[in-house]
Amino acid sequence: MTAPNSTYDVIVVGGGISQNKQAKWVDLGGAYIGPTQNRILRLAKEYGVQTYKVNERENLVHYINLSAAKLLKTSGLNPVVLEARDRVGGRTFTVQGKSHAFKGPFPPTWNPFVYMDLNSFFRTMDEMGKEIPREAPWRAPHAEEWDHMTMQQLIEKICWTAVRRFAKLFVNVNVTSEPHEVSALWFLWYVRQCGGTMRIFSTTNGGQERKFQGGSGQISEGMAKELGDRVKLQSAVYKIDQSGDAVVVETVDKQIYKAKYVIIATPPGLNLKIHFNPELPPLRNQLIHRVPMGSVIKCMVYYKDNFWRKKYCGSMVIEDEGSPIGLTLDDTKPDGTVPAIMFILASKCRKLCNLTKEELKRICEIYSKVLGTDEALHPVHYEEKNWCEEEYSGGCYTAYFPPGILTVLREPCGRLYFAGTETATAWSGYMEGAVEAGERAAREIMCAMGKLHQSQIWQHEPDVPALPFVTTFWERNLPSVGGFVRFTGVSAFLSVAVAAGVLAYKKGLVPRN
Amino acid sequence: MTAPNSTYDVIVVGGGISQNKQAKWVDLGGAYIGPTQNRILRLAKEYGVQTYKVNERENLVHYINLSAAKLLKTSGLNPVVLEARDRVGGRTFTVQGKSHAFKGPFPPTWNPFVYMDLNSFFRTMDEMGKEIPREAPWRAPHAEEWDHMTMQQLIEKICWTAVRRFAKLFVNVNVTSEPHEVSALWFLWYVRQCGGTMRIFSTTNGGQERKFQGGSGQISEGMAKELGDRVKLQSAVYKIDQSGDAVVVETVDKQIYKAKYVIIATPPGLNLKIHFNPELPPLRNQLIHRVPMGSVIKCMVYYKDNFWRKKYCGSMVIEDEGSPIGLTLDDTKPDGTVPAIMFILASKCRKLCNLTKEELKRICEIYSKVLGTDEALHPVHYEEKNWCEEEYSGGCYTAYFPPGILTVLREPCGRLYFAGTETATAWSGYMEGAVEAGERAAREIMCAMGKLHQSQIWQHEPDVPALPFVTTFWERNLPSVGGFVRFTGVSAFLSVAVAAGVLAYKKGLVPRN
Repeated sequence: MTAPNSTYDVIVVGGGISQNKQAKWVDLGGAYIGPTQNRILRLAKEYGVQTYKVNERENLVHYINLSAAKLLKTSGLNPVVLEARDRVGGRTFTVQGKSHAFKGPFPPTWNPFVYMDLNSFFRTMDEMGKEIPREAPWRAPHAEEWDHMTMQQLIEKICWTAVRRFAKLFVNVNVTSEPHEVSALWFLWYVRQCGGTMRIFSTTNGGQERKFQGGSGQISEGMAKELGDRVKLQSAVYKIDQSGDAVVVETVDKQIYKAKYVIIATPPGLNLKIHFNPELPPLRNQLIHRVPMGSVIKCMVYYKDNFWRKKYCGSMVIEDEGSPIGLTLDDTKPDGTVPAIMFILASKCRKLCNLTKEELKRICEIYSKVLGTDEALHPVHYEEKNWCEEEYSGGCYTAYFPPGILTVLREPCGRLYFAGTETATAWSGYMEGAVEAGERAAREIMCAMGKLHQSQIWQHEPDVPALPFVTTFWERNLPSVGGFVRFTGVSAFLSVAVAAGVLAYKKGLVPRN
Repeated sequence: MTAPNSTYDVIVVGGGISQNKQAKWVDLGGAYIGPTQNRILRLAKEYGVQTYKVNERENLVHYINLSAAKLLKTSGLNPVVLEARDRVGGRTFTVQGKSHAFKGPFPPTWNPFVYMDLNSFFRTMDEMGKEIPREAPWRAPHAEEWDHMTMQQLIEKICWTAVRRFAKLFVNVNVTSEPHEVSALWFLWYVRQCGGTMRIFSTTNGGQERKFQGGSGQISEGMAKELGDRVKLQSAVYKIDQSGDAVVVETVDKQIYKAKYVIIATPPGLNLKIHFNPELPPLRNQLIHRVPMGSVIKCMVYYKDNFWRKKYCGSMVIEDEGSPIGLTLDDTKPDGTVPAIMFILASKCRKLCNLTKEELKRICEIYSKVLGTDEALHPVHYEEKNWCEEEYSGGCYTAYFPPGILTVLREPCGRLYFAGTETATAWSGYMEGAVEAGERAAREIMCAMGKLHQSQIWQHEPDVPALPFVTTFWERNLPSVGGFVRFTGVSAFLSVAVAAGVLAYKKGLVPRN
């Protein structure tokens, strides 16, 4: 069996690792791992790659800078609603340009209504997620309803307060796309199959807990070394012909490979780089045009020392209309050398693609505001990787589903089998998902060859011990803002006022501007 | 200059024309033309291809079959709202399985509220459309707001009554996709650049007024004949290298072509079939993953005689939950031979892709119900073309933009220029748009070669005389249902009741099922 090399691998084995004097090594692609990612942790052990904890010893910092006027415009609400909410929520909308230190996965709030709203956002997402089968989200009881709405619509339905802004950031950071671009069903599934809102977003005990000492690329390199010259780099596949006895694979560098079976491990949209004979079935032919990759530029700013650790750990949650970034993490090496802060440009990065590195350094000014020190203005080095420009990945981290599309991605077509993190059922979108998918596809072929029973295709991975997330009585039982309003006596006045406003706006009775 | 052949043309020149004994000739792809499509009419004249009018002499027929219970489920509203509307709209929701004959582009209604609502739907769409520049929809004053919502959201905002169902059909039929899949901005632009709601949907005086005698393929064949062996068929391009002095184009059948410039006229998503050197710029690299083609199976059912013409012309507007089709047209030859009815399977066709032709004939039972005669049950021949299965078109009629994506498609990349109907500014999605785009791209290259001034790239096409659509005083001035409710005294009671319902539902105070 000669399987073609994933076109993803044409750059270097295992994607974006870079080595140079200033940064030592830097993960420009997939980097973070955490508890419950058992398969990638097993592989790391096998290849002797150590992990280390991302620094979160000091406080995290939450920065908000948003004028009430801008909020008004961006919240999609009219003044009547805002006023009604303001009476409930106090001065939430007037907080400007302030940094607050905190501990734990999410920024806390002093405002009880915002707290109720945030709590309800996470709880509702997780409750909806529990309805969604990890291996077949389209079979969820409300699959059709949820797949026909965007995440934006769901956020507007669940959230009453400024939590909407945070919810947008939550989508941006987790899937490098916008709430109005992605199907609510898909995003709910995505969070669920990562273990829920806490697991996906947390550093400590979550998806960003650790990195690999020396870079994640070492695992792919270890595997490539084992496989020897069967791994072909710089060799994109443009044709797969399974009309004869063997599957014939042709590459842009004019090589021809013959195989009994083929596994394609590219993002689903990159199947389009290949001309198929026979053509793919109609559903897949259309599907691969409908699953774009997210948009992200991964950036690292390097400093002489860890000045931020005097007060903060380096994790910043930034809610600022003028800022293109929403989240940072400390990226200093585990031995304390090469101090650095990592950020991603997700939200608006398709439009920022043509900015120079010099211009991107302006991000340092935001660091400076958030951290409250001029030291942030003097970086000593800078690294970035714009994944939007990669022909053979099409973007990062993962493919997303716009509304109305969600369906199976891993159905084989003849002797073609599909791997790639998008086809996984746990931590899809992460390195963990890629390992699950690759191993499953290999077992599918072994089953087709009669070497395995069908019941052996999907295998449970022994757990590396992980701490559960414990919810408090109040987190489980606090009402949502909606529930609270209904419960209390304020209900009569407020609901009529707010409802009339929503209705009037939705029906265009209130001018849009 | 040797430009590569569009990969779209690998099947036959100009797409899907089929010839056989039973059907004589049949357009399986683009077929309809109408007034204001000046360029394609000019070309037809040049190649001596005659047009004929699609039969609409007799009455059209509108069939509704929808139980109140189903409406309740599909409308996404709760009983409170429905009840409140029912009081306004009378028995709109209980009409079941009835055919109504009518004249004109749209089915009329006896219910004044439904009439107001339908009138307001078209008027609002056209008014919003007027704000949108045909050549740059992303520059519309409300571009961002409208691009962040799906057409489904806009329909729910504009329409109060069962007109929502018709609005869905309007989207399905015009762009072979679902309201929840497409950006509202994009769809508003699409209707606008076809000349508005009346022009796009009408047979008489609209986009479906005429067909070509002998099939539309004759125009492409005429052009191909002129070009001789410079037209290469069955020759998909997989590589374009513009790193050297010439642009080098390689095809799957191992041919190599060299050119000064290249025009790619495929749907934008099919750019992905090509491996580029240098890579496309980041924005285009991501864009081509984000513009899927619609989903359509085009079908023709043939009969011994034109039995339907005793009462109806063959145009049926079908609103029936159980029916996969929403619209038909008479497809009899202009001399009265080969009686046939054409329909498209759009809405659910991705899931229907694997149905046998035999099963699709069940459509005849729907014809029989709508037309009220068993004669529809006895077809003598059947033709179909499933465009979802075509690797080199990816679907039909045209590419659509999901929410959040709309941007320029025709920006050249080095010596690559982009044509294809999706890049047009009038009748994009139609044969007319393809001609506009092709001629414009050719002139862009002539400009780059110094043979034309930049001001000559975009050229006005002389009008073939066309009748305008005249609106009545009432069509222009009738209030919307929302406006009416606000204006009248009923307002106080109704708005509170409806609003409370909407709010309660949106905030989850009313259980979803």
